[in-house]
Amino acid sequence: MTRWAPDRVAFGGDWNPEQWPVEEWEAQVRALDQAKVNLARVGVFSWSLLQPGPDEWDFAWLDHAMALLHERRIDVVLATSTASPPPWFSRMHPESRVIDERGYRHEIGSRQNWCPSSPVFRQASLTLVRRLAERYVDHPALRMWHTNNELGCHNAECFCEHSATAFRVWLRDRYRTIARLNEAWGARFWSQSYASFDEVAPPAVSTTFSNPTHVLDWRRFCSDALLAQHVAEREVLRDVAPGIPVTTNFMIGTGNSVGRSDYFRWAASVDVVANDHYEVGWDSSEARLHEQRAWSADFTRGVAGGAPWFLMEHAPSGVNWQTVNRTRPPGELRRATMSYLARGADAACFFQLVQSTSGAEKYHSAIVPHAGTDSRAFREACALGEEVARLAEAIGSTVHADTAMLVDWESAWALQHPTMPSNGFEPFDIAKAAHRALTRAGATVDMRHPRDDLSSYRFVVVPGLYLCDDELGDRLEAMARKGARILVTCLSGIADATDRVRGGGYPGAFRRLLGVRGEAFAPLPAGRTVAAVSPEGAGLYQGRFWQEELTADAETEVLARWNDGAWAGQPALTRRSVGSGFAWYLPSIPDPDGFLALARSIRRGAEPSSAPDPFADLVATTDVEVVRRRTGGVEYVFALNHGDIDVTLPALEGRDILTGQSAASWKLRAGDVRVIRTSSS
Amino acid sequence: MTRWAPDRVAFGGDWNPEQWPVEEWEAQVRALDQAKVNLARVGVFSWSLLQPGPDEWDFAWLDHAMALLHERRIDVVLATSTASPPPWFSRMHPESRVIDERGYRHEIGSRQNWCPSSPVFRQASLTLVRRLAERYVDHPALRMWHTNNELGCHNAECFCEHSATAFRVWLRDRYRTIARLNEAWGARFWSQSYASFDEVAPPAVSTTFSNPTHVLDWRRFCSDALLAQHVAEREVLRDVAPGIPVTTNFMIGTGNSVGRSDYFRWAASVDVVANDHYEVGWDSSEARLHEQRAWSADFTRGVAGGAPWFLMEHAPSGVNWQTVNRTRPPGELRRATMSYLARGADAACFFQLVQSTSGAEKYHSAIVPHAGTDSRAFREACALGEEVARLAEAIGSTVHADTAMLVDWESAWALQHPTMPSNGFEPFDIAKAAHRALTRAGATVDMRHPRDDLSSYRFVVVPGLYLCDDELGDRLEAMARKGARILVTCLSGIADATDRVRGGGYPGAFRRLLGVRGEAFAPLPAGRTVAAVSPEGAGLYQGRFWQEELTADAETEVLARWNDGAWAGQPALTRRSVGSGFAWYLPSIPDPDGFLALARSIRRGAEPSSAPDPFADLVATTDVEVVRRRTGGVEYVFALNHGDIDVTLPALEGRDILTGQSAASWKLRAGDVRVIRTSSS
Amino acid sequence: MTRWAPDRVAFGGDWNPEQWPVEEWEAQVRALDQAKVNLARVGVFSWSLLQPGPDEWDFAWLDHAMALLHERRIDVVLATSTASPPPWFSRMHPESRVIDERGYRHEIGSRQNWCPSSPVFRQASLTLVRRLAERYVDHPALRMWHTNNELGCHNAECFCEHSATAFRVWLRDRYRTIARLNEAWGARFWSQSYASFDEVAPPAVSTTFSNPTHVLDWRRFCSDALLAQHVAEREVLRDVAPGIPVTTNFMIGTGNSVGRSDYFRWAASVDVVANDHYEVGWDSSEARLHEQRAWSADFTRGVAGGAPWFLMEHAPSGVNWQTVNRTRPPGELRRATMSYLARGADAACFFQLVQSTSGAEKYHSAIVPHAGTDSRAFREACALGEEVARLAEAIGSTVHADTAMLVDWESAWALQHPTMPSNGFEPFDIAKAAHRALTRAGATVDMRHPRDDLSSYRFVVVPGLYLCDDELGDRLEAMARKGARILVTCLSGIADATDRVRGGGYPGAFRRLLGVRGEAFAPLPAGRTVAAVSPEGAGLYQGRFWQEELTADAETEVLARWNDGAWAGQPALTRRSVGSGFAWYLPSIPDPDGFLALARSIRRGAEPSSAPDPFADLVATTDVEVVRRRTGGVEYVFALNHGDIDVTLPALEGRDILTGQSAASWKLRAGDVRVIRTSSS
Repeated sequence: MTRWAPDRVAFGGDWNPEQWPVEEWEAQVRALDQAKVNLARVGVFSWSLLQPGPDEWDFAWLDHAMALLHERRIDVVLATSTASPPPWFSRMHPESRVIDERGYRHEIGSRQNWCPSSPVFRQASLTLVRRLAERYVDHPALRMWHTNNELGCHNAECFCEHSATAFRVWLRDRYRTIARLNEAWGARFWSQSYASFDEVAPPAVSTTFSNPTHVLDWRRFCSDALLAQHVAEREVLRDVAPGIPVTTNFMIGTGNSVGRSDYFRWAASVDVVANDHYEVGWDSSEARLHEQRAWSADFTRGVAGGAPWFLMEHAPSGVNWQTVNRTRPPGELRRATMSYLARGADAACFFQLVQSTSGAEKYHSAIVPHAGTDSRAFREACALGEEVARLAEAIGSTVHADTAMLVDWESAWALQHPTMPSNGFEPFDIAKAAHRALTRAGATVDMRHPRDDLSSYRFVVVPGLYLCDDELGDRLEAMARKGARILVTCLSGIADATDRVRGGGYPGAFRRLLGVRGEAFAPLPAGRTVAAVSPEGAGLYQGRFWQEELTADAETEVLARWNDGAWAGQPALTRRSVGSGFAWYLPSIPDPDGFLALARSIRRGAEPSSAPDPFADLVATTDVEVVRRRTGGVEYVFALNHGDIDVTLPALEGRDILTGQSAASWKLRAGDVRVIRTSSS
Repeated sequence: MTRWAPDRVAFGGDWNPEQWPVEEWEAQVRALDQAKVNLARVGVFSWSLLQPGPDEWDFAWLDHAMALLHERRIDVVLATSTASPPPWFSRMHPESRVIDERGYRHEIGSRQNWCPSSPVFRQASLTLVRRLAERYVDHPALRMWHTNNELGCHNAECFCEHSATAFRVWLRDRYRTIARLNEAWGARFWSQSYASFDEVAPPAVSTTFSNPTHVLDWRRFCSDALLAQHVAEREVLRDVAPGIPVTTNFMIGTGNSVGRSDYFRWAASVDVVANDHYEVGWDSSEARLHEQRAWSADFTRGVAGGAPWFLMEHAPSGVNWQTVNRTRPPGELRRATMSYLARGADAACFFQLVQSTSGAEKYHSAIVPHAGTDSRAFREACALGEEVARLAEAIGSTVHADTAMLVDWESAWALQHPTMPSNGFEPFDIAKAAHRALTRAGATVDMRHPRDDLSSYRFVVVPGLYLCDDELGDRLEAMARKGARILVTCLSGIADATDRVRGGGYPGAFRRLLGVRGEAFAPLPAGRTVAAVSPEGAGLYQGRFWQEELTADAETEVLARWNDGAWAGQPALTRRSVGSGFAWYLPSIPDPDGFLALARSIRRGAEPSSAPDPFADLVATTDVEVVRRRTGGVEYVFALNHGDIDVTLPALEGRDILTGQSAASWKLRAGDVRVIRTSSS
Repeated sequence: MTRWAPDRVAFGGDWNPEQWPVEEWEAQVRALDQAKVNLARVGVFSWSLLQPGPDEWDFAWLDHAMALLHERRIDVVLATSTASPPPWFSRMHPESRVIDERGYRHEIGSRQNWCPSSPVFRQASLTLVRRLAERYVDHPALRMWHTNNELGCHNAECFCEHSATAFRVWLRDRYRTIARLNEAWGARFWSQSYASFDEVAPPAVSTTFSNPTHVLDWRRFCSDALLAQHVAEREVLRDVAPGIPVTTNFMIGTGNSVGRSDYFRWAASVDVVANDHYEVGWDSSEARLHEQRAWSADFTRGVAGGAPWFLMEHAPSGVNWQTVNRTRPPGELRRATMSYLARGADAACFFQLVQSTSGAEKYHSAIVPHAGTDSRAFREACALGEEVARLAEAIGSTVHADTAMLVDWESAWALQHPTMPSNGFEPFDIAKAAHRALTRAGATVDMRHPRDDLSSYRFVVVPGLYLCDDELGDRLEAMARKGARILVTCLSGIADATDRVRGGGYPGAFRRLLGVRGEAFAPLPAGRTVAAVSPEGAGLYQGRFWQEELTADAETEVLARWNDGAWAGQPALTRRSVGSGFAWYLPSIPDPDGFLALARSIRRGAEPSSAPDPFADLVATTDVEVVRRRTGGVEYVFALNHGDIDVTLPALEGRDILTGQSAASWKLRAGDVRVIRTSSS
């Protein structure tokens, strides 16, 4: 195993030369070089060319493409090409194709149509991986291997017989006896007790709801089954080419999708955490597009344990898969790329480098658009390539975050079950609302797994962490005793890992920490809000989506109560003093302004008194984003102005490594970006 | 056959002890006893425990559970456990599972996944029923048998080969010759003439619309196929245990669902009509939640022919199957339960008694919630149990209703066909709008089948009764001659039982009764309204969803005409004087206020002059609900204040049997309930 | 081949006597005669009666029906009855039934459930056609053959193995080698390269997007497969009965449906172009219902190459297949029928003549409604029959249109692919918006295929013509040089016939003609608008759905730029002077008023100076529709007032052939129609 250790910020992305006549390749590579592209991912969907038939192989075109890249010192991330098997394979082995939740076997003609538990697919894909590894192990352009592509993007679930068999094996490993499975699933209800593992099926569509724990275990299994494909490919690569790092691209944080992979479990399997991210939709009054990037980047960094990570795909401009695809206006590309780098990426790669002229992604934007290099978009990319190169000195620095937010795919999956008290919001919506509030309040947030070591954080947020271990409450209580501030929201700590509800009052795992006891959940329908007011009558926030019937212990402060509606007078915000810290309980989801005010108020207390955040006011009142990366006494302050108003930054002695200019005070024009090197405080 | 004859108001509901360790059972029963629970339904989904394998049986746990209940004098309604077969059965007999309208066979892992026409399921279920009957026939706690559960809730239709065969047998029984089927269905159109019954299939999804009469007969068949399962189970029970009444829970009136069972046909098959009802959604300006309860209860009572009925399930608080599940605020449980009792129930049972901690219904509320007995919800249940017990003296009394509304599942099913002039509203929407208007006008309404004896009613409403027999018009005319008032709305009397339109003008069956002739239907799109104004120019109502091109006979009064739009000047309300009665035709669906005014005006006339309704003004202008139950010279006036304003009831000499207080004049506080015993007028 | 050459305007429609007892037929025919019906289409869905079993035939009832019609001089359009096979056939040959995109085989019991590529269906249907042809070849009532019915209405696509085989044959014919298919489809992307034609499947549902060119070729194949059924039937008919014209009913212009048939390819296969058209929905502020008729009629006429065409179906009043079906108010039927005749139809036929009382279309309106002949609707039909007869002298005259709009099914199909930059509007929405604007501006528009001869037009509009040949730009440039005015909108000329994007800037095929170069598309989400303002600051229109990043060549005038938003300052309307003509580029879809103003301004320039349009102001400011038909020096001015305000027409010397009245100046009352014969200018 060899970690990825870059000496320049990777800048580039997907190049699929096989789409064009070979005569055009050289000009394309020349254009990429002109844009300072220093890395190309090649071969993601090339299986049908590399292996045109069961016993035919053709690497010549790839040899040529890699040679052209190497001539220009462009590194290659070589994909294993296993993402989509060739038509001949899918036709010869129809049993390898994905079967959906209603028993329909997907037709060929698209991509990623293979079952993660298919033995014949596994075997054929590993043969290909070995061939590629053997051929290119010593290629001078080869910088990293990339298994498959966006594992599970379209084949996260398969309901075929191979999957069913593999699921049963997985369940037997987990539960050993069928009695323990029945117990974990609560199978005695609805006459679901199984007499043997052989009776269990994947939770395909049934007459009504499937058992929630059955579905949750199925999600866990599906994630593991995909991970197994990556690990199997990686093992071949390490066997043949032990000195080359291996990664695969995660899909953390795009849109409202929770996704089907538990990347906290996956992170250890890669030599660098790589991620793809795309903004979805348009700016709204509630959420700004750059907040989507912050969410994705902070989440990816958390999955990477805080280490620098690799942005494998983002869009030069519009994509092609939304209903109406937004195009980046002039100047936005630079801010978009810089925000991922600010938040810990040491690589900024695009899908794609040269825009296709046919096929399903021809309207996905590229560094070289349909219009060619004589275009505003290409000129912006060239300027960006120059600037990215100047960030080389920051490689390896890590993002300074004093706030942790605890998130977990298993909780999110459990919350998706249609029998929850409310399906009126998406599983990560609470975390996202909290992330936006905290970010606007000036915090930089790491999204961490509840089992991670949290001791370095002064402020921990637990946003709708529905499933958790019993001991988490104790761990957080211990942190609070030492001065940490803990904010827990509704829908946290309710159930254990089998989705069994903790009795005696909500939120079971955190009742002692918070000093409250919930008797009933009371979801609100979409669009309805209720005012939370302080004892003095001040409106603190507008509650949305959720309320609770709640009792506060004697020593717990009730900071707000509901003003009207069916639950008027019930607590709407509580705080318990714990040692030198505090624990808040928030039994609702506040409106953005109310949440911001709450986050600012808690955060002010969470900062060590020696270091009030000089940027907090600026960030809370403008569209300016500020993030710090640090390494050995040096701090890089990334300041990005996403708004249309020029601002002045707080006093900051240093040098802008993008412009080379030194100063103690900085203007940041509307739309502009600065990366100011200063000494770490 | 033995009718259910209670000596106390049944109060209790579902207890599924098998979900918890046996050590917890006794404490649970103790808590139920504390809440005055006197009846538990047991064994609804226990097949997989009772018969863990093809030749294994285990009744010990059930023996124990029943013994515990009996110790506390809690009666048992013993379910036959046939609602959901065990996994081993469904896997051994995949042909017993439900196939949907696109040929998909539902996977196991949920509930009620069995075809009503499956021979192997029928046989296995009856074996289980016989075993249970033989074991518990003499058990002292056994009060009633309950076949299956919510028959057809998730398996109302199955498109498998067994269903197809049974459907053909059913059709042959109905039509005898294929020529008569072709004639009834109008099969000559679209080249659908069948040469033999063997060619007919269930109306699974086809290229476009299926034949409407084909679909209607399918609905009739599906209802009969489900009923046959109940009857088969009942016959076994009566055979083994002839002295024990048998019922099964109907599902009348929940949400907008018309349902798939013709409960008017089913009613004779049970020893007491039992029903499950759940409110759906939230209060709105158009409909208040307690009106959903009134609708369901009045409909159930009508199905029961006016006799007392059994509320088998209602929710202590929220349910778990809506998108956002509403929680009952403090005090509502009492009003909810009391309103069913007011409207003729002699039993008030809940799903469920103790809240599950795992499985698909763990977020369905219970008498003992997750928080345990130390909770506001449990304390309310205890208080309610006390009060319900005080209603014992009213057992067997019947609801006083002088208004009948004619409804019919066959009509509703026919209206659901997508080729109707408008699918912009649901089949029972007209009846519901009329029911709300009448209820607000102070009436208590029995929903009756058109073939029922209607002679006791002074006022008969025919709301969108699309299919009916030819003779119904004559029967209503005869009633009118004797002084009854008849209100017929649009979409009534159009077609015969084969859905063949009566020619010569709408509404065929009622043209003579009403003295009108419709030439064309003219549906209105959602959201569009047209004003109906009197000859004097007064606005009577806003018409919605429907208009007609209509001619009134010379002797028919036109009380309103459309004020504008394409059909301005056409009649919007007519009245024909018939003997000492009247017949109104309402060719639209009025807005709530307009409908209320119309209902009040007609109703004032319908009351015998000696007895003007003293509550009418109160009910029309507040959220107070008033219903009377009578028995042998005694009247129980149930008065429920669902609003937040205290009111004073009209003079009423009597005793409040809830409080024991006697008076001649009563305050009814916001949220409060009174049940005043007085002498019957 | 024999063209249809009428001597009277065909007036009539579908009569399906088999639905009623034979005793009622004569009275029905008498009523039709009373309404001046002179043509009946018979036998559309009669296969199950004509051939009740594999070896049984029964023509007696049809002999009788045709004899009754002939007695009253009612011509017969005899359908081949192949639209829906009998149940016995579909059950004997399940492989002939349609399989949907998820592999589901449609159940029998509806209509048109046959695969266009089914050999057994083809054979059985041609046997029937031959039997019919042989029997009725010499029948004196027979006026025209009608193959099948609305080919593809419910079976446009079938994913069965017969279809797959036929698709592969079609592809082999088109591409010869698999390498050329791979090249055309861009199959190297996503690993889709095929090794042989045998690997290609119909684009049934797959894991995600199918290849766009694959889908486009599938649409072409499906259209051809349906056409092949018509041609095969026609060949039998021509063989047996060479002197009788043959047609089939197209479905052009109903609702938002693009449809699945490329009728420009189909037009040559019929002896007269026949069309079915139905209005969908209600009038709105954006689009009036009569504009739907104008769109359909102008499109049908364009498909017919400008020749008179046959309106095979329109609705006497409401239909039965929309969610809420609108009923025609009094007087509308006359205007509806007249507008098709105005726009080039020489036949006005209805579905249906006598309203069914059972089956799936019993609520579809008819000339004789359920209420019978004593009805306002029937009396209107009789009056209309009288008037239609007076139009006989205009038979064969052609519509005067000086504007062409280029439309194309292949472009529309390509635009439907979900990977386009925006799926926020329907493919023909741009053309429809342009058609409405032009029509309101007083133009009469022919919808023509891009390869048609366009030399007679002074004004050519290219609205979202996404795919086109390279040479179209040159042809239009040549026209402009000679004085024509060319208006090109966004999404035109982007790709070639294989959906390969033209590089170097948008809109590839028209860049030189227009003198612009687009660098990026920038779709707008629904509901968002941006103002286009002139250099002088005047607001020209509100742009919707689409913007572009665009550069105008030096000699190209920028008539408007975006006022705000991300693309402020980019061109929003350009004009290039070309010889004595002009070429406009419109990179957005204007709001209705803005588009009308633009259309009027361009059109004023397009008219030869000698003939300004005297009706333009009237048409633009009222709901009056004016169309001219011409023949040999005579012009018929059809003026229809769809509004509720009386108007005066511009000076027009002539005779109203409906009333016989002569004048030089005409009032046109609200709701009225005039057809004024004058001399052609």
